[in-house]
Amino acid sequence: MSRENRVHCAALRGKIMPAEAAASLIPSGVNVGMSGFTGSGYPKAVPSALAKRIMDANLYGKRFKIGVWTGASTAPDLDGALAMVDGIEMRLPYQSDPTCRKRINAGEMEYIDIHLSHVAQFVWSGFLGKLDIAVVEVAGILEDGQLIPSSSVGNNKTWLDQADKVILEVNSWQNLHLEGMHDIYYGTQLPPNRQPIPLLRTADRIGEPYLRCDPDKVIAVVETHSPDRNSAFAAPDENSQLIAGHILEFLQHEVKKGRLPKDLLPLQSGVGNIANAVMAGLNEGPFENLTAYTEVLQDGMLEMIKSGKLACASATAFSLSSGALAELNADLDRYRERIILRPQEISNHPEVIRRLGVIAMNGMIEADIYGNVNSTHVMGTKIMNGIGGSGDFARNAYLSIFMTPSQAKNGAISCIVPMASHVDHTEHDVQVLVTEQGLADLRGLSPKQRARTIIEKCAHPQFKPALMDYYKRALEHSPGKQTPHLLEEVFSWHLRALRGESM
Amino acid sequence: MSRENRVHCAALRGKIMPAEAAASLIPSGVNVGMSGFTGSGYPKAVPSALAKRIMDANLYGKRFKIGVWTGASTAPDLDGALAMVDGIEMRLPYQSDPTCRKRINAGEMEYIDIHLSHVAQFVWSGFLGKLDIAVVEVAGILEDGQLIPSSSVGNNKTWLDQADKVILEVNSWQNLHLEGMHDIYYGTQLPPNRQPIPLLRTADRIGEPYLRCDPDKVIAVVETHSPDRNSAFAAPDENSQLIAGHILEFLQHEVKKGRLPKDLLPLQSGVGNIANAVMAGLNEGPFENLTAYTEVLQDGMLEMIKSGKLACASATAFSLSSGALAELNADLDRYRERIILRPQEISNHPEVIRRLGVIAMNGMIEADIYGNVNSTHVMGTKIMNGIGGSGDFARNAYLSIFMTPSQAKNGAISCIVPMASHVDHTEHDVQVLVTEQGLADLRGLSPKQRARTIIEKCAHPQFKPALMDYYKRALEHSPGKQTPHLLEEVFSWHLRALRGESM
Repeated sequence: MSRENRVHCAALRGKIMPAEAAASLIPSGVNVGMSGFTGSGYPKAVPSALAKRIMDANLYGKRFKIGVWTGASTAPDLDGALAMVDGIEMRLPYQSDPTCRKRINAGEMEYIDIHLSHVAQFVWSGFLGKLDIAVVEVAGILEDGQLIPSSSVGNNKTWLDQADKVILEVNSWQNLHLEGMHDIYYGTQLPPNRQPIPLLRTADRIGEPYLRCDPDKVIAVVETHSPDRNSAFAAPDENSQLIAGHILEFLQHEVKKGRLPKDLLPLQSGVGNIANAVMAGLNEGPFENLTAYTEVLQDGMLEMIKSGKLACASATAFSLSSGALAELNADLDRYRERIILRPQEISNHPEVIRRLGVIAMNGMIEADIYGNVNSTHVMGTKIMNGIGGSGDFARNAYLSIFMTPSQAKNGAISCIVPMASHVDHTEHDVQVLVTEQGLADLRGLSPKQRARTIIEKCAHPQFKPALMDYYKRALEHSPGKQTPHLLEEVFSWHLRALRGESM
Repeated sequence: MSRENRVHCAALRGKIMPAEAAASLIPSGVNVGMSGFTGSGYPKAVPSALAKRIMDANLYGKRFKIGVWTGASTAPDLDGALAMVDGIEMRLPYQSDPTCRKRINAGEMEYIDIHLSHVAQFVWSGFLGKLDIAVVEVAGILEDGQLIPSSSVGNNKTWLDQADKVILEVNSWQNLHLEGMHDIYYGTQLPPNRQPIPLLRTADRIGEPYLRCDPDKVIAVVETHSPDRNSAFAAPDENSQLIAGHILEFLQHEVKKGRLPKDLLPLQSGVGNIANAVMAGLNEGPFENLTAYTEVLQDGMLEMIKSGKLACASATAFSLSSGALAELNADLDRYRERIILRPQEISNHPEVIRRLGVIAMNGMIEADIYGNVNSTHVMGTKIMNGIGGSGDFARNAYLSIFMTPSQAKNGAISCIVPMASHVDHTEHDVQVLVTEQGLADLRGLSPKQRARTIIEKCAHPQFKPALMDYYKRALEHSPGKQTPHLLEEVFSWHLRALRGESM
């Protein structure tokens, strides 16, 4: 297919129109399912055209808001543009746009933070109301109307299945050699008709390379030629490298003890610089023939595929820097043998995560001394991005690891606190905590033992004495000593930070 | 088999000995895996004999402690006896014994509160250290050494597989007609060798009716004739009936909206009087041909099997009053067609719970206005019983419902609070809250919308104004408005209660 001819289905060719015309088909008050996952594969033209339409409506004093459902985070020209004109009534699930975040935390936009694995079944079963329109980017359309997915799959299968109407963006910037990399599983059902998902190994293909879409539902096709918003990764800093080092040492220890196979188990890695550094560490490490069963394929994993350390990676989206993207595009036919992009319903599926025995490694905002983890709320009230898939993975993983630098804001904030100001992962779901200071293996420890271990291994030396002092006083004065706490001062650390003081 | 002859394996007959002799084979410092789940199928003689031995050792100034691992809660003659003599170093997972609880909350005993579905894989993969000895009650031993399980299965398969040595209690009080009711699945593996669990319907049998045990590992066989500790259920009180009524109305509404099939989906129901009342409500309700995929089979479910409302129940244990037990025993051959007892690894397995689409209904201690649920800690520090299987079910359920009366301690305590003092189920895992006041359907609501709904529908009128006042002030003054909170006063409710005042 050439840039000019990626719409090979005659019925759909007749529906090609400019983004503005397509955007005019989206009325106020509807729920719109958009493609997009960590800046990949989101529609590039219709959302910003819609934002301009909303702005015009607002200028005439008309309220114009829609519900925006996505795979995960998108980019400024989707979330940013729509949030800028206050056009989002309700947003779900994960987001990371600064304008969006500002609106949410100002109380101007409703945000529902649900597990990524819940979205498809919640929509399918009608728990979230009607999905009116899908706006989905694809890399091309085949003669029979099947769609070549783009650089992310996310919830696209669900949006195309469930929406009354569909708008397709065909982005000729996307590499056509993506064709064949995707694995779209059409075997999911609602209960009581669910069958086992026949995925036994990371590399298994259980579906089809194309998305299905009823051509009669398509109300517009928009041709684009726009790049994904590539995230630039910082080179791993010292803290990230130390965290990666602790994890590597731990994994080696587990192999030695016979608790992990030599080639480990499938790796899941959250988004961000620390996760990327852990991958860089693994790339230099002693393990061979690794696999990844994860949400997002970042630079670090691509490097590991290139080096041969990673035999296979399954994800739902790419999130690559422009350098890594160039590398991928230059050798896409070879990478396609080792990479599978799946619907997030499958990449994050509890059944598959439990069966494969995933090693889940996710970032966090803070953990408390008992190992409860806050992944979402700064100081308990301000949303950062959302839980994303971290709960899907942590809850059903073989090993659940959370990591963060021990301090933030130049040492004013301790990321180990007496009590987490918001809990996204409970003590029951957190087995290992890691900071640059060290690694706390919490398996088989009671809360009191966890507290001593976490303070000792993970807290920054600047905060260690105060944490130990809190713990000891709590142990002495707490009404109950299963999880000792002094409720009257438990958030004094956060309150100091809110006053601009050091915790 | 007669009362006198339930040990048909010649090799094991030679190992019959008194409980005291068997208990003398358990040294200090070992980890012991005991059978038992909610007072059913726990060993009746060896633990109390061991407790007496520990008392003797203590009288001579010798420290004697063991690790006690079980299925879930047991009874006074196991947890109570061992805790009384301070003989438990570490206890896991769920417990509900008053003496145990007292020791834990006094800081005298370590308690690890892990998900029931995690226990088998944690032990198998060596996360909790070595399991030295299994003490397991069975109903009988076949000629070839296979074991007829007792009134609970729990972790017995794992204990018998993993322990170096095995002590069997053969309890002739248990009805021999239990034979054939159990379904012990031997297909679980550690990753990377896991296969799909071939359970597609509640009624599916995927294993064998007997437990396997290497006779060479058996160091003692003890014959007993002792009853399970039957829990007496209170007749449903007004609050329980109101809660049951709200749930019934909700389920009918869901069926009407096409979000649930007419015969619903498999029901999971926590332990206790409210759960029992919900079953009583369903027994009078309009639904037919129901199924249950749950941990514990209580009186209410037995009634529903009797009435024909419940076509099939899968559990890992009975927890019956003496009246219900007599009913079961009188007609066991008929009940056996409708009841399956499985290892808790399977009854609580994430893969199966997700596939079947379980409707999870669990009790709680308190919920906060954003729908975070505390199931374990009174005032944030004192353990009640433990999380049990509520996390296994809630996290992977089709619908996750939590319920409690809106008040406790004669109205001094509100069970709806500004912030949960301990979080076992996060906002992401809680879809419906119910009190006698009403039902809050939280699906598709943002935290702010959840708060208004929960206060409106679930809080007691006595506390409603104060909760709404807190919420409104938080909305105005909170630094972030995704989840508005005033950290400086968020636990003032609990602190008042701790001072003996009304919340």
